Amino acid sequence: MDEFALIRMLNGPRGHGGGKRSPDDSGVTVGIGDDAAVLRPGSGTELVVSCDTMVDGVHFKPETMTFADIGYKAMASNLSDLAAMGARPRWALVALAAPRSLPADKLQGLYDGLYACAEKYATAIVGGDTTSSPSGLVVTVTVIGEVKQGRALLRSAAQPGDAVFVTGPLGGSAAGLRAMLERREAAGPLELLPERLRPLARAHRLPEPRIQAGQLLAAVEPRQCGALNDISDGLASEAWEIAEASGVTLILHGERIPLMDELREYAAAVQADPLEFALYGGEDYELVGTVRPDYRAELERMFEQAGLRLWFVGEVAAAGEDGTDPAIGVTLIRSEGGVPAPVGKRGYNHFA
Amino acid sequence: MDEFALIRMLNGPRGHGGGKRSPDDSGVTVGIGDDAAVLRPGSGTELVVSCDTMVDGVHFKPETMTFADIGYKAMASNLSDLAAMGARPRWALVALAAPRSLPADKLQGLYDGLYACAEKYATAIVGGDTTSSPSGLVVTVTVIGEVKQGRALLRSAAQPGDAVFVTGPLGGSAAGLRAMLERREAAGPLELLPERLRPLARAHRLPEPRIQAGQLLAAVEPRQCGALNDISDGLASEAWEIAEASGVTLILHGERIPLMDELREYAAAVQADPLEFALYGGEDYELVGTVRPDYRAELERMFEQAGLRLWFVGEVAAAGEDGTDPAIGVTLIRSEGGVPAPVGKRGYNHFA
Repeated sequence: MDEFALIRMLNGPRGHGGGKRSPDDSGVTVGIGDDAAVLRPGSGTELVVSCDTMVDGVHFKPETMTFADIGYKAMASNLSDLAAMGARPRWALVALAAPRSLPADKLQGLYDGLYACAEKYATAIVGGDTTSSPSGLVVTVTVIGEVKQGRALLRSAAQPGDAVFVTGPLGGSAAGLRAMLERREAAGPLELLPERLRPLARAHRLPEPRIQAGQLLAAVEPRQCGALNDISDGLASEAWEIAEASGVTLILHGERIPLMDELREYAAAVQADPLEFALYGGEDYELVGTVRPDYRAELERMFEQAGLRLWFVGEVAAAGEDGTDPAIGVTLIRSEGGVPAPVGKRGYNHFA
Repeated sequence: MDEFALIRMLNGPRGHGGGKRSPDDSGVTVGIGDDAAVLRPGSGTELVVSCDTMVDGVHFKPETMTFADIGYKAMASNLSDLAAMGARPRWALVALAAPRSLPADKLQGLYDGLYACAEKYATAIVGGDTTSSPSGLVVTVTVIGEVKQGRALLRSAAQPGDAVFVTGPLGGSAAGLRAMLERREAAGPLELLPERLRPLARAHRLPEPRIQAGQLLAAVEPRQCGALNDISDGLASEAWEIAEASGVTLILHGERIPLMDELREYAAAVQADPLEFALYGGEDYELVGTVRPDYRAELERMFEQAGLRLWFVGEVAAAGEDGTDPAIGVTLIRSEGGVPAPVGKRGYNHFA
């Protein structure tokens, strides 16, 4: 099959536009099929743009992800970066380097996953590139969203006194990854896994970007708003990023960090500390942020009204003037009344 | 070195923004260093967005490109897609999957090339991703430009009677590629190559996107404007894309297609037809377009005033109502007065 027929097959009628001017409410003037896409941003908005790559053998293996999972997660991890800025997703581009030997139905599965996630979050796939790869599959997704002018949520906006929150249970993805690798089987339908592993495997394979939570946070009155990050590299690493960008210390309370029951059970079975998965595992794609303490109750009310939840897991303290005592960084109080211990800056790091 | 130190090293002070709000005339509110970049588009414009991937062993080999060349060309080939829409480049993101074994100075060379091209065409690098790759280097660049609302130049806009033009000599890149592969040496400074090969090697290694030409064409009164494409896959393939998108036939005149003297010499030396390089070689990144015949002289005057040139290489004819006699497609009149022969749709095709 030639490259152009392949692009047509993979995108089919789902791809936005056919190279002709075709305005609709997706903001796509020209979609797939010309040298570039032409898009209409809203007025009074800024663009929020990010790209992420998933590499065969690094981000996925046959034991951990189906092709549909790879596609879904490639889109979800990118949309999560938009969520972390409080942006509304609009458009995406998909660049694929695929081995010639990869069967067309696997590629189709990958695209089914990409489109399933894109459509769920109202994101139009408007272009990309398809090339052969002499080695493994590499998928790069670029996403473009919009946020009201001046309302993007930065990791540098935490202030001493802020409350620290997360939007969901952590560590499930890393535990799911470990459990699937231990099974040494090709990844198949989630339903074929033992029931207690399913939520963990789902967290790893089909993460959900917290788009609605991000937009709720971006709608908060700017004075009340703190920092925001998505948890791609583990809570420790993301908290460190907020601490360094904001010049503060984040104090986390171990007993308040939400964990799935299935994670606790799995950790007990493998004699591991469940908190390690939450702090250093990564790929949960929940959000971690801070909010002024006076606004905490109002934010909880807003989330509840929207059918969402927040977990308050710590607070922000000032760092010493010279960055010491307390130093800029992250500390953990493992159980209430305990002594704060420094949390390492580590997380998943591709060049460590 | 860890991933974050690497990103800092590769981008250094050239990267736009440090995760803080820092407005300047680049339109970058937040650059490298947060979950996503935040950008301010102009008013009354549409966005023009494209991405392209370059893969080790497919798009470059040690014999054909230095790391600085890979970076320059990765940016240039993407900006060329913006030129082909008549857009003004604004921002770029760079996603890199690199083997851990790749020395830091090679990566630095790659980034030097990326920045050299980006800065030449006033494009701010605002983000990206850096991951390890268990196999070869894969570089994906995403570019975002702007065009006045409704003024993007589409490949579907050719009309019967239009004149067909190109913006520069063709085939040099493919000849340069072949000549370098025949030498079986690692690519080094262009100056070390025999003088007659340098322009060909330069065309392959350091192509220039025709940004100024594209913007001149986008400024033409819309009624007078035709189709536009950039020549990434050879003139034959790009002319076919215009023909199919516009439902017309393109008639090319072989003797009018501009060729470098060095290409003619090289082709004679290897007993090849120089026109084959122009038609089927690709990666020249010149533009091919059409213009209403009455406007041809005015367009030539505009280009001359801007210090640029156009070569008129053919004309557009209506295809039969059922797409036959003449069929939608491309024909070549090799020498004036000769019989038009059909031109194959082939070009460089990654899945052929």
